[in-house]
Amino acid sequence: MKKIDNGGITSPKGFKAAGVAAGLKRSGKKDIAVIYTESPANFAGAFTSNKLCASSIDYCRRVVERSDTIHAIAINSGNANACTGDQGVADTELMASELAKHLNIKNDQVMISSTGVIGVPLPIDKITHGLKQAVDKLSFAGGEDAAQAIMTTDTIHKAIAVSIDVDGYPVTIGGIAKGAGMIAPKMKMPQPHATMLAYITTDAAIEPDCLRHCLVNSLHGSFNRITVDGDTSTNDTVITMANGAAGNPIIKTGAAEAELFSEAFSYVAMNLAKKIVLDGEGATKFVNVTVKNAKSESQARQCAFAIANSLLCKTAWFGADPNWGRILDVIGYSEIDIDSGNISVFYDDLVIVEKSQGTSTPVSDQIAVLKQKEFNVTVDVGVGNSEFSVWTCDLSYDYIKINAEYHT
Amino acid sequence: MKKIDNGGITSPKGFKAAGVAAGLKRSGKKDIAVIYTESPANFAGAFTSNKLCASSIDYCRRVVERSDTIHAIAINSGNANACTGDQGVADTELMASELAKHLNIKNDQVMISSTGVIGVPLPIDKITHGLKQAVDKLSFAGGEDAAQAIMTTDTIHKAIAVSIDVDGYPVTIGGIAKGAGMIAPKMKMPQPHATMLAYITTDAAIEPDCLRHCLVNSLHGSFNRITVDGDTSTNDTVITMANGAAGNPIIKTGAAEAELFSEAFSYVAMNLAKKIVLDGEGATKFVNVTVKNAKSESQARQCAFAIANSLLCKTAWFGADPNWGRILDVIGYSEIDIDSGNISVFYDDLVIVEKSQGTSTPVSDQIAVLKQKEFNVTVDVGVGNSEFSVWTCDLSYDYIKINAEYHT
Repeated sequence: MKKIDNGGITSPKGFKAAGVAAGLKRSGKKDIAVIYTESPANFAGAFTSNKLCASSIDYCRRVVERSDTIHAIAINSGNANACTGDQGVADTELMASELAKHLNIKNDQVMISSTGVIGVPLPIDKITHGLKQAVDKLSFAGGEDAAQAIMTTDTIHKAIAVSIDVDGYPVTIGGIAKGAGMIAPKMKMPQPHATMLAYITTDAAIEPDCLRHCLVNSLHGSFNRITVDGDTSTNDTVITMANGAAGNPIIKTGAAEAELFSEAFSYVAMNLAKKIVLDGEGATKFVNVTVKNAKSESQARQCAFAIANSLLCKTAWFGADPNWGRILDVIGYSEIDIDSGNISVFYDDLVIVEKSQGTSTPVSDQIAVLKQKEFNVTVDVGVGNSEFSVWTCDLSYDYIKINAEYHT
Repeated sequence: MKKIDNGGITSPKGFKAAGVAAGLKRSGKKDIAVIYTESPANFAGAFTSNKLCASSIDYCRRVVERSDTIHAIAINSGNANACTGDQGVADTELMASELAKHLNIKNDQVMISSTGVIGVPLPIDKITHGLKQAVDKLSFAGGEDAAQAIMTTDTIHKAIAVSIDVDGYPVTIGGIAKGAGMIAPKMKMPQPHATMLAYITTDAAIEPDCLRHCLVNSLHGSFNRITVDGDTSTNDTVITMANGAAGNPIIKTGAAEAELFSEAFSYVAMNLAKKIVLDGEGATKFVNVTVKNAKSESQARQCAFAIANSLLCKTAWFGADPNWGRILDVIGYSEIDIDSGNISVFYDDLVIVEKSQGTSTPVSDQIAVLKQKEFNVTVDVGVGNSEFSVWTCDLSYDYIKINAEYHT
């Protein structure tokens, strides 16, 4: 697997993209993105489990049900078009039909996403005008513009591409994502679901079922293991498109190539998920929370998310305060099975807690770990052999600032 | 029911208390409290459901099991004596035996509580010295000193007393509480549990079962409906003592007097619980979140707590941002049954959302509600007739400051 410098969704063959400023954002920044594949693509999608999801989510779910291939995705930022009633539904459909018209494709070959403030009707005239502009600007070099156009409170755009060799054919997988706040997977499995916006393109020739399988497989270890603030959005979406332009023999479920492709696909998803947490609202630190030796993976997951979402843990990390008592407190109330006299906690490789009590590890060494931009908190609950890792960030003054002082 | 000016735990007859500074707090403030009843008291206790509870919790549970009456409670602040292993257990027992010795009562007539930093061994010499001092200072006017001595990050001490007439006898109920952070009930019922430290004294003559019933009844509408930060402590405790000094005919379960007493008891518990939220770490606002017309009370409760603990809602309240989309987002992911097209939201009496869409209520009116020190957020989910209210506070810069810059 080879990483492509400055890669993104237009790195795979046959994909064009564009991002334009249509006036949805008061900042005047880009706010409409279009992703287009020259030949129709197999596709798969995963969506939020939030019951009050946006109309674009309902729309996309219908496309998934009735279409075999898609041709384009339009995304607007600055407005989530959620809780906007019948008008919201009509606006989503108008976005789809306008895009289809400009691209001369069918309505049900178009997917739509929206992100931004909830409960405000879309400024639909600006959007239809912007869609036309974006279609006019579509190019094989437009990936970065699209990555920028989907940003909301993100401080940097998020993109990656990798290539692998499939039977002698170079196959490329590219992705973009956005998300900084209202980031938290729903913890219920096995329903796949996503937690932000991410689009993964590939020129691989791959069976639809195999592609869907790759997406589902990737979620568990990527978008479904991250949390910034514990709030699951109404609009979370991951969509992947495979247009076959690489010309490789079709990748089929069960074949060795499927595994190779799935690994690369998961790598792209993980990379994007990690970028979201690194850019979490107000985040100054990336924290990998692992719970191991739990009774089951779901228990490990439940406890790891409880730690990752604890305000007391997140603020301690922000302050580089090695106060492990807060971690033990969370373990105690996380409602998983534990050996209460036999808990261990590690900051990176340092043993901080052993047999549920503090060790003699010098506090200065502990602080040194917590002052890093990235570190690991590992908890051993001593009752089984399952583990799960969650990626999160600290909670800083800037999180409060972003969410109390701006209407987001 | 009559409220007693400056009332507290020494308002009921026969109760003495004291608070002294034993050097556990770096600030030099009071950190050891003793509550004493001249005649042995019927009692009841409710404790944290945290699996990594402090040794004092285990100790108190044993007293509850084996003792019919108690005589005294000692509480230290500045150190939770949690996750301190065998030494912690021995220290709790030493606290109990020292107190019993000084008061000339039996070890198992003593309850012990600790609150403060987790994982640091108790400075036991300071504590035993402080206990002696406190016993020497015990007085019928010592309630306020005791209320101050149990404070940690609290900015004000919390106390109340009320009196009622039982068969012509004045009966008094008094209480103190502490708690500002690491405040959150466990949401699982029906196991009663507490979420901070609270002590409720009464001179009522009341059957032990009836007293226990009053405590259990009160939790649901008081300590178990509050959350500051969603973190459930290792040391949460509510203990009540009834010494019979009022001389009233014994209050028995099922009698009219039992109901009267229970109401007054619940009022004291609710008042203390509300004081905890009002003094929540960094809190600038008290928010009463009600979910109504839910399928069941437990669903209403689950949704109300999800809103009350949402960082996005809490920061919006801090900023007086009427962004109701964040509330609908939480309703959507709270995993309760809802009528997704028929959600209403009210800020005090203003209708903000109707049929899951924004109303024309002027934004300036909405902001005016959210700028108050106290307001109500009411959600109607339109599928049943059950409701539940949760008391919470906003999330401010000062919460981050208190928990990132100090080792608490």
